[in-house]
Amino acid sequence: MMRYCVLGSGAGGAPILSRHPAAVLVRVEGALLLLDCGEGTQRQLLRLGVSRNRIDLIAITHLHGDHVLGLVPLLTSMHSDRRRRPLLLIGPQGLREMVEDTLRRIYTELAFPLEFRELPEGFAGGVVETPELLLDCAPLQHSVPCFGYRVEQRLAVRLDPARLAAYGITPGPLVGQLKREGQVRLPDGKVVRLEDCIVHRIPPSLVYCGDTRPCDAAVELARGAQVLLYEATFGREHAELALETMHSTAEEAARVAAQAGVETLVLMHFSARYRTVDALVAEARAIFPSTIAARELEWVELHPRPAAILPQQ
Amino acid sequence: MMRYCVLGSGAGGAPILSRHPAAVLVRVEGALLLLDCGEGTQRQLLRLGVSRNRIDLIAITHLHGDHVLGLVPLLTSMHSDRRRRPLLLIGPQGLREMVEDTLRRIYTELAFPLEFRELPEGFAGGVVETPELLLDCAPLQHSVPCFGYRVEQRLAVRLDPARLAAYGITPGPLVGQLKREGQVRLPDGKVVRLEDCIVHRIPPSLVYCGDTRPCDAAVELARGAQVLLYEATFGREHAELALETMHSTAEEAARVAAQAGVETLVLMHFSARYRTVDALVAEARAIFPSTIAARELEWVELHPRPAAILPQQ
Repeated sequence: MMRYCVLGSGAGGAPILSRHPAAVLVRVEGALLLLDCGEGTQRQLLRLGVSRNRIDLIAITHLHGDHVLGLVPLLTSMHSDRRRRPLLLIGPQGLREMVEDTLRRIYTELAFPLEFRELPEGFAGGVVETPELLLDCAPLQHSVPCFGYRVEQRLAVRLDPARLAAYGITPGPLVGQLKREGQVRLPDGKVVRLEDCIVHRIPPSLVYCGDTRPCDAAVELARGAQVLLYEATFGREHAELALETMHSTAEEAARVAAQAGVETLVLMHFSARYRTVDALVAEARAIFPSTIAARELEWVELHPRPAAILPQQ
Repeated sequence: MMRYCVLGSGAGGAPILSRHPAAVLVRVEGALLLLDCGEGTQRQLLRLGVSRNRIDLIAITHLHGDHVLGLVPLLTSMHSDRRRRPLLLIGPQGLREMVEDTLRRIYTELAFPLEFRELPEGFAGGVVETPELLLDCAPLQHSVPCFGYRVEQRLAVRLDPARLAAYGITPGPLVGQLKREGQVRLPDGKVVRLEDCIVHRIPPSLVYCGDTRPCDAAVELARGAQVLLYEATFGREHAELALETMHSTAEEAARVAAQAGVETLVLMHFSARYRTVDALVAEARAIFPSTIAARELEWVELHPRPAAILPQQ
């Protein structure tokens, strides 16, 4: 099972009480990922009741203050907790220097190892692969190097009793052999392949695009995702400002979602000028109906979907 | 009038929901000072309803994370607010480099000037003098260079109608001359000095000792202060830990307050292990009865006190 929780749905600059700076928590089975870490993220974790020490990796989209300035405070608290296991930090080049220099200046030598994976400018592709998940990234279009992330659960193979029965395979040694070897020869000589006997499911996937102009890379990264968390800093009345500051409007977010064919678009990173964001959601829905606004500190579960069309080989 | 508000009363390391990292706001007439700036200080300002752009100066006690990591986020918000007037930053050596490097790394060039006053290690004395206030500092005893601050209001001269009447001075040109020239000759030849005709008042003063072992410098800095905000990271059961980490216990705070002859001791910087601090306050009160625990987001007013003994010259 996969679920996510937006810890901060606000844009940088001037924070407001009703929204926090960017941070999204993603849980995939036993793994816990944090995407971005604005100021006060560790306090949001406290409010949510999730232990910061369960976090396995933190991926930063870009080095603007509202996406990263909560990172060192969080690390120092992990240190105070006597964390020992390593923490993986992913982000644009410069992340390592920023973190290490700040830690040195506040006289803090962490008691646990930081592992850095800095992404070269323009890099697209796989970043992390575990038995539970795949983390991919793509370069976005912002005023500074910025990456979007895609988290996809890796599902365990699940046999389909109906298909097995159709091939006349009953529980027993044949099933074990099928799973072990990927295929099995039946008494009548017919070969049955594993992939013909499993439940085909589309794994839960979440894409998080921090700050960006609408771009092909965002569309490709979000292709078919169950959830696209995408910035809608502005409404259409500030389309020029969005262009100038390399952000997106709610409508632009909706077009990315529509082109990518995602299931649900979740708008976030709202400018502080919007006390309510109903108008932004309405703008987006006119283009992509399945749009909602991020709600901070609410967990949302993502489940595998049945595959509509069986793969043919 | 002078007043203060503790924005954060917690010690660093592992934050808890009920307390914020160190920050104290001090208002002296029209001037607004911030002492320390832990993570989330700008959010506390929002909760208090005080505009961050009214802040004239920020003085940092030392460069541990829980006292300084809210500074750059606050500066970036001031920048977003289009602040133009300068901001004075005071603190130990290294503050400037930390702030400037971090700003550079998050691609932020502030639209307003920062003026830095870095205090040489061991420096004691006056730091800022304005028509409204005096800001002094003293070096404390912590694991890293650390300063305590004293803010004292400069009171306007207030004539005492009763004294004037006793000299036979009635409202009119003589009063103007007395204020202008500091003395006046009466028709009978007698010279009356201004200081014999004024209301003698002890100005409000507040001393803030960030992290420190009890020490003579703290006592001297706090001498006769109306309020001493002093760290009580631990209770007496952790006296050794206090010694080892260069902090103070509540009892040690009380002894500093007693030696300095302050009016009120306000304990703060409580370790996260103390969910309630009643026991720490009780320990301190056994030594110094006029002790309270800091309460976040409450303004406390400080007024001039009548001088018990008139100065003799």
